[in-house]
Amino acid sequence: MSKHKVTKIGVLTSGGDSPGMNAAIRAVVRTGIYHGLEVFGIRRGYSGMIDNDIFLMDSKSVANIIQRGGTILKTARSDEFRTPEGRAIAYKNLKRLGIDGLVIIGGDGSFKGAQTFSNEYDIPCIGLPGTIDKDIAGSDVTIGFDTAVNTAVEAIDKIRDTMDAHDRLFIVEVMGRDAGYIALHSGIATGAENIIIPETKTDIEELIANLTEKEKRKKLVNLIVVAEGGQFGDANELAKIVKGRLPNADVRVCILGHIQRGGSPTCEDRLIASHMGYYAVESLLIGRHNVMVGVINNKIHYTPLNHAVKQKQTIGQEWMKIVKILAS
Amino acid sequence: MSKHKVTKIGVLTSGGDSPGMNAAIRAVVRTGIYHGLEVFGIRRGYSGMIDNDIFLMDSKSVANIIQRGGTILKTARSDEFRTPEGRAIAYKNLKRLGIDGLVIIGGDGSFKGAQTFSNEYDIPCIGLPGTIDKDIAGSDVTIGFDTAVNTAVEAIDKIRDTMDAHDRLFIVEVMGRDAGYIALHSGIATGAENIIIPETKTDIEELIANLTEKEKRKKLVNLIVVAEGGQFGDANELAKIVKGRLPNADVRVCILGHIQRGGSPTCEDRLIASHMGYYAVESLLIGRHNVMVGVINNKIHYTPLNHAVKQKQTIGQEWMKIVKILAS
Amino acid sequence: MSKHKVTKIGVLTSGGDSPGMNAAIRAVVRTGIYHGLEVFGIRRGYSGMIDNDIFLMDSKSVANIIQRGGTILKTARSDEFRTPEGRAIAYKNLKRLGIDGLVIIGGDGSFKGAQTFSNEYDIPCIGLPGTIDKDIAGSDVTIGFDTAVNTAVEAIDKIRDTMDAHDRLFIVEVMGRDAGYIALHSGIATGAENIIIPETKTDIEELIANLTEKEKRKKLVNLIVVAEGGQFGDANELAKIVKGRLPNADVRVCILGHIQRGGSPTCEDRLIASHMGYYAVESLLIGRHNVMVGVINNKIHYTPLNHAVKQKQTIGQEWMKIVKILAS
Amino acid sequence: MSKHKVTKIGVLTSGGDSPGMNAAIRAVVRTGIYHGLEVFGIRRGYSGMIDNDIFLMDSKSVANIIQRGGTILKTARSDEFRTPEGRAIAYKNLKRLGIDGLVIIGGDGSFKGAQTFSNEYDIPCIGLPGTIDKDIAGSDVTIGFDTAVNTAVEAIDKIRDTMDAHDRLFIVEVMGRDAGYIALHSGIATGAENIIIPETKTDIEELIANLTEKEKRKKLVNLIVVAEGGQFGDANELAKIVKGRLPNADVRVCILGHIQRGGSPTCEDRLIASHMGYYAVESLLIGRHNVMVGVINNKIHYTPLNHAVKQKQTIGQEWMKIVKILAS
Repeated sequence: MSKHKVTKIGVLTSGGDSPGMNAAIRAVVRTGIYHGLEVFGIRRGYSGMIDNDIFLMDSKSVANIIQRGGTILKTARSDEFRTPEGRAIAYKNLKRLGIDGLVIIGGDGSFKGAQTFSNEYDIPCIGLPGTIDKDIAGSDVTIGFDTAVNTAVEAIDKIRDTMDAHDRLFIVEVMGRDAGYIALHSGIATGAENIIIPETKTDIEELIANLTEKEKRKKLVNLIVVAEGGQFGDANELAKIVKGRLPNADVRVCILGHIQRGGSPTCEDRLIASHMGYYAVESLLIGRHNVMVGVINNKIHYTPLNHAVKQKQTIGQEWMKIVKILAS
Repeated sequence: MSKHKVTKIGVLTSGGDSPGMNAAIRAVVRTGIYHGLEVFGIRRGYSGMIDNDIFLMDSKSVANIIQRGGTILKTARSDEFRTPEGRAIAYKNLKRLGIDGLVIIGGDGSFKGAQTFSNEYDIPCIGLPGTIDKDIAGSDVTIGFDTAVNTAVEAIDKIRDTMDAHDRLFIVEVMGRDAGYIALHSGIATGAENIIIPETKTDIEELIANLTEKEKRKKLVNLIVVAEGGQFGDANELAKIVKGRLPNADVRVCILGHIQRGGSPTCEDRLIASHMGYYAVESLLIGRHNVMVGVINNKIHYTPLNHAVKQKQTIGQEWMKIVKILAS
Repeated sequence: MSKHKVTKIGVLTSGGDSPGMNAAIRAVVRTGIYHGLEVFGIRRGYSGMIDNDIFLMDSKSVANIIQRGGTILKTARSDEFRTPEGRAIAYKNLKRLGIDGLVIIGGDGSFKGAQTFSNEYDIPCIGLPGTIDKDIAGSDVTIGFDTAVNTAVEAIDKIRDTMDAHDRLFIVEVMGRDAGYIALHSGIATGAENIIIPETKTDIEELIANLTEKEKRKKLVNLIVVAEGGQFGDANELAKIVKGRLPNADVRVCILGHIQRGGSPTCEDRLIASHMGYYAVESLLIGRHNVMVGVINNKIHYTPLNHAVKQKQTIGQEWMKIVKILAS
Repeated sequence: MSKHKVTKIGVLTSGGDSPGMNAAIRAVVRTGIYHGLEVFGIRRGYSGMIDNDIFLMDSKSVANIIQRGGTILKTARSDEFRTPEGRAIAYKNLKRLGIDGLVIIGGDGSFKGAQTFSNEYDIPCIGLPGTIDKDIAGSDVTIGFDTAVNTAVEAIDKIRDTMDAHDRLFIVEVMGRDAGYIALHSGIATGAENIIIPETKTDIEELIANLTEKEKRKKLVNLIVVAEGGQFGDANELAKIVKGRLPNADVRVCILGHIQRGGSPTCEDRLIASHMGYYAVESLLIGRHNVMVGVINNKIHYTPLNHAVKQKQTIGQEWMKIVKILAS
């Protein structure tokens, strides 16, 4: 624990946006003000630190935002912050305003930047896991995942209406370049017959045999949910493979894309964002520095920022077995 | 008016599915039963007539479906029904069951089939405009359009969250191969800066100039909504053109796709479907045959089936002017 | 047509709020700016005119609000504006800022105020029908109705899940003190067995007989949708009557209440609000003064403000007959 | 562990319905069939066991229901099953069909019945916690809570639009006769200024003082979320108290009511229901009898049925402190 005493803090969102970031910003601002801190908003992530796009916030700045998607602070990826020169400018800007603590809402890339910055300059940083991918070590949950997965489920429910009306094979691609959680959860929740995720090897011959048999027995109605980072490339690539092997199949592709990032956050995402935002400020105040605030087994849990890396979780074979049993 | 007296009728959905078809089926079944008719469901459009996939329905067959997307009767496009041989088999199947009237819920292609069939055989047909594209002559509204356009609006609202968070240029493709209504309405409703539809020529140089000027003034935040049948090809093609001219722009593409066909129908779609279904049966009963039941200026309107063709509406230049003024 | 030339206009929302008011404000502001006018926002309806709570708006003031429920200008009912003294103060405040035209988004009460004000002082007023009740003479549609009725439909769909699971009788009260449109449309769209509205007399004995017969035949599953201004008082009163006559019935009451006023507006409400807002400013510019901008048969229609009164529409007996046939 | 070997099982839903029950039924049926069991559906809870309303299910019986609210098996509370005579009839009906295992989806009352039944007769029972109240010992989660709380959040978001437009005080009552979870979570997620729950004593004088001070400073905009089982009675009672003390306040009451029980389940509720349903059958197969399948710290957890009672959780004072800080 450091003896650094914070009085002015900055808050920023960085990397891809995720629903619930606004709820986290609100919690940081209001908890900070409650404890007598000055809280500054920094726009467009680390870019705003370098461009000095920083402004004092008050309680009203965050009124009526808990239910909004996106981030009122905007977000960006900053190449300049990856250079020592960039970070030097950023530090100078913070110093001039007297900012002596930072809360960074983002993913593992953003935390790496924070750790480097904090190593070089005496500004403690607290990270909050803001990503729809749920793939950060040190937390069972991430801000935005629950909303993203429910958006995917609602979209796939709609697609199923058409699928059933037409007896078609649909391949639906959801987000998740390195992590299959959105695919796994949304696939189970929509009764997908097959789910293809980066964490598990899919036997293409078994898949094709399965589809072929279905085609023989009856019309081929089948839903495949695939994470964008799947082993066969994107959904269009997979469709090509399937069509190559089942020339008569009526195969359709849907790529859900960016709708999964937006929208009003679910109750869960607003709650964890509020909770994490509160404990981020508490951590700065008591000197628990350079940690990510996460949740493990429903309890707040702190992980050193340099351990809060992207983590490919083990998705049990049991889950994949359940998928097959329930969709049959 | 024919003196043909109907006693047993068939109902089917044909072509692409659209939300509200179930509400129309329910209205046909219950109005038929109320008038003492026997009502048969025919599965998978004209295919079911040929395959004899026909079953007697009762009031309970359509319980609790008014709120469901898709169609409980399933739908398909039938090549065989385009041949005299196919239609002969279909007729034989209807005749055997004593079916002497048909209600067809579908688009202009389905109506053409019905007209041909009715010319050849003495079975009166009533058409209901079931398509998300709102492009059928003889009706201001079609079953499914209102739901589809609201689905598009909700999706684009989500995308705007991310667009604003990142200051990006988004090109969103909505359905509408020949008709720009979904694009026009959803574009206005989401404050799109540009809307590209088949009915109106878009000046690409003006568009590029407009984007270039925006890029100079500030970050390029811009939403382009494009109908799939637009003059530049699909959204990916348009994105290529834009990136070719604005190499530094952060351009993202979203193709909303099949989510626009499904989902629980809106109040409006349930109402017009119920209304049209009721008048379809009334029409069969009083001998107003081979018409499509539509709505013009909020009143039920009948159009001979052979006039109920796909119609490219004139979308006034005034609307496109309003788009520009309101998005500025 | 007046020769009054407007240069500065004010816009306000008055009476009960309705979804789409923000879209109308946005259209007024941007169309005004496009035509070189200065546009002032007036907060809390006529109260803000008296309290001088008036501020200059620019294009950004209305960015990203088209999808928001409520009204950024807030709304209120003002007793003071009903007095000559109140209106005198209001006029002085407008005059000092040079405001020479007003756009009022609200209901018939708000239009009455506008008409009186305009009679006394030389400030032309344009009204836009902003009410969820759809009961204003001079327009087939009002801003907010479509959203409210869809909110009611979604809520009743949820209630039906429980109703069917438990075989219960539900009485659901929707808004509409003087007008039964929300009840009629949402009732038909959710397959309600009975709909009770102010426009039509309901025979309570027939209703009770109908329920009694159902109770005998099987479990009493029945949905009654009632407008708040129904002939038997509110839903709780009706429930008492029903329980008095069917002591064994499992009757539940739901009053949907204020959720019907809020929420993100539907595509339709955003479109008509945008359209009407545009034509409000056009009207001020060409001297078409003291009218309400409405829509009749899908075309913009102007009605003198003093004719734009609350109007009990005739709801045809045919509709009530269709309700019975379809719900059977 | 018993050596009882199950071959035919029954599944039923009992007590209040909750979203996700259908997903649980589907998982039980398909997992049972996968393991070669015959699975019978029992309608209307224990009533169906007594009335012999029992039918064989197959894989198709549960197709396309994972996304539906309510329960396809219907539910009820049975007084007769509380008597030895009732249970004797129920047993005879099960025996005749050869049913030798039961899965009961419901709340603590339903589990008590199952335990009694299983003590008297040699039929093992497995319970799944299906209730929106999240108040069952032995599980962190219950099927339906996540959906109910999100429905409440969406409704309160809409109410907030109106609240802000009018500067009003709203008292919103959510479900939870004995448990304040829905109120606590939905209140935090909507930024409620006050949350009143059974688990915590609310100081009415502090509440009134707080509102009075707000009224002095500015217009009284305030959201109070109250659980139906709160210490002051229902929302209308609380409104009376508030109006008695603040006669000038514009106080509105909304009772969300039964909409919280219905609707398409969230991803989370579908997942836990699927998971629990799968393990219910596995438990019957390996002889882990008379337990409730729950989830503790994200892992499946088994609790003897007679310990799976209603449990008033301790809601930490820390949460109530966070509520105040974040809403200020």
